[in-house]
Amino acid sequence: MKVSIIGLGSMGLGAAINCYRAGHDVVGSDLNPAALKKFELAGGRSSDQLADAANSDALLIFVVNANQAEQILSESLLTSLAPDAVVINCVTITPAAAQGFAERVERIGLHYLDAPVSGGAAKAMTGDMSVMGSGSPRAFERATPLLDAIASKVFTLGTAAGDGSRMKTINQLLAGVHIAAVAEAMALAGHLQMDLHRVLEVISECAGTSWMFENRGPHIANGDYAPLSSVDIFVKDLGIVSDAAANHASIPMTRTALELFANASKTGMGQMDDSAVALLLARAAGVRLPGDPTAEEHA
Amino acid sequence: MKVSIIGLGSMGLGAAINCYRAGHDVVGSDLNPAALKKFELAGGRSSDQLADAANSDALLIFVVNANQAEQILSESLLTSLAPDAVVINCVTITPAAAQGFAERVERIGLHYLDAPVSGGAAKAMTGDMSVMGSGSPRAFERATPLLDAIASKVFTLGTAAGDGSRMKTINQLLAGVHIAAVAEAMALAGHLQMDLHRVLEVISECAGTSWMFENRGPHIANGDYAPLSSVDIFVKDLGIVSDAAANHASIPMTRTALELFANASKTGMGQMDDSAVALLLARAAGVRLPGDPTAEEHA
Repeated sequence: MKVSIIGLGSMGLGAAINCYRAGHDVVGSDLNPAALKKFELAGGRSSDQLADAANSDALLIFVVNANQAEQILSESLLTSLAPDAVVINCVTITPAAAQGFAERVERIGLHYLDAPVSGGAAKAMTGDMSVMGSGSPRAFERATPLLDAIASKVFTLGTAAGDGSRMKTINQLLAGVHIAAVAEAMALAGHLQMDLHRVLEVISECAGTSWMFENRGPHIANGDYAPLSSVDIFVKDLGIVSDAAANHASIPMTRTALELFANASKTGMGQMDDSAVALLLARAAGVRLPGDPTAEEHA
Repeated sequence: MKVSIIGLGSMGLGAAINCYRAGHDVVGSDLNPAALKKFELAGGRSSDQLADAANSDALLIFVVNANQAEQILSESLLTSLAPDAVVINCVTITPAAAQGFAERVERIGLHYLDAPVSGGAAKAMTGDMSVMGSGSPRAFERATPLLDAIASKVFTLGTAAGDGSRMKTINQLLAGVHIAAVAEAMALAGHLQMDLHRVLEVISECAGTSWMFENRGPHIANGDYAPLSSVDIFVKDLGIVSDAAANHASIPMTRTALELFANASKTGMGQMDDSAVALLLARAAGVRLPGDPTAEEHA
């Protein structure tokens, strides 16, 4: 299949590499030349021109937000795709936005798969993401060779766009709250003068563990805030969760976590790894965590 | 070994049964006759008299809180134990309380193990709890035959009481926040008219999962709030976390979850399963979750 992948961030890069390795004719695009370079170093073909997506059988979208996806899904780009092409949108967006994109794509006779993903950069790189998919049987059929390349779990959540994004909304609520909880737990462990690596080792065998504890906890214990997924991503994603809630009184945990990510972003941490919210909480407790750049300046 | 176990709730009962099955001479005590009956039905010997702990080589404490433990650890009971006996305190208490109990026990020449546990009722019943232990080498040595019977993981966190309870404090922060997050996620899924069992199935394979999501999520999807661990337990445990924090600004997630559990308790849910906080959030969103007794009254 001729495949165009737009957005070569931590998830898109892994997806592009796995599609390429599965034998597809892949071109990867990104606004960031460094992202293009990474894909080229892995043997992929890259382009900074969206026009190179013309005649693709599949368009995989891994950009940051709905606005970027909106710009990509222009009529001129869509009409340039091959007949019977499928648009696989892996961006975290509202269910309503997914429905809107699906209408736009289906109106010109192509297929749309609402296909948000989960698993983080490491699973993206090994082709082991989970896909929360919804769309027509034909959209799934056309997408399957690529989904098989990028994911080890593909959930079929409905025949209409929106159902996949609804599930992703629930996932992001939990993921965002859990990252904030890991940050809070590690900052408190620092205050109690505990060995943070020992905390990781013990709690991962206890009822307090979570996927995010095991994934983000080491970032905090190591003081490594190189962004795999940034603070600003969760400002956006918990905003989507808030939009989905009937009543903000029903999402107190989301609201508290969103405030934490938003405060971190305001203090200049927006592009740091999302686990950097631990630094904000540690500073509030008068604790110095490993890798705190502010603390180092004063040292 | 002659072993006395005080507190036959969901964790203590499992521990008592596993000590008994491991061949120890066990007597189980509880203020609640129903709890005594359960242990007897499992073949154990029970007593409603603390005095029956006399001459025990080990005293395992599984009561609800520090106040109850305080009453049990009277000088008359401690001096009635066998020489070289070990007190294994599995109650979730503050590190300072653990240090105080250790001093009291060690003053009369016995051994104290700060030994909070994790794993829930199911793992207690199969002898697969995790123990966050700290205490003297002799305390560990005396306790080992019993710890081996009740736990599959025993962490040695230090030679002084308090280190085990510090780790349990971190665990309970995460556990309590995660339960609140599960409740919020399931209430939002209800609002979005999603199939709650499908949510469990999908999210447990995604980055939003947690031990508590997989353990408490089914309670909510099934509307089964029979208490394995109650709302009031987390009012207490998140209070311990709050006490441990230097500054309440550093624990916003804990504070929000504590407020939720406290509100649930105030509205009469204190003795329901802790996952029942989902009902409070669902009602705030105008959503009816399975098993909501209020909703049924109005039906």
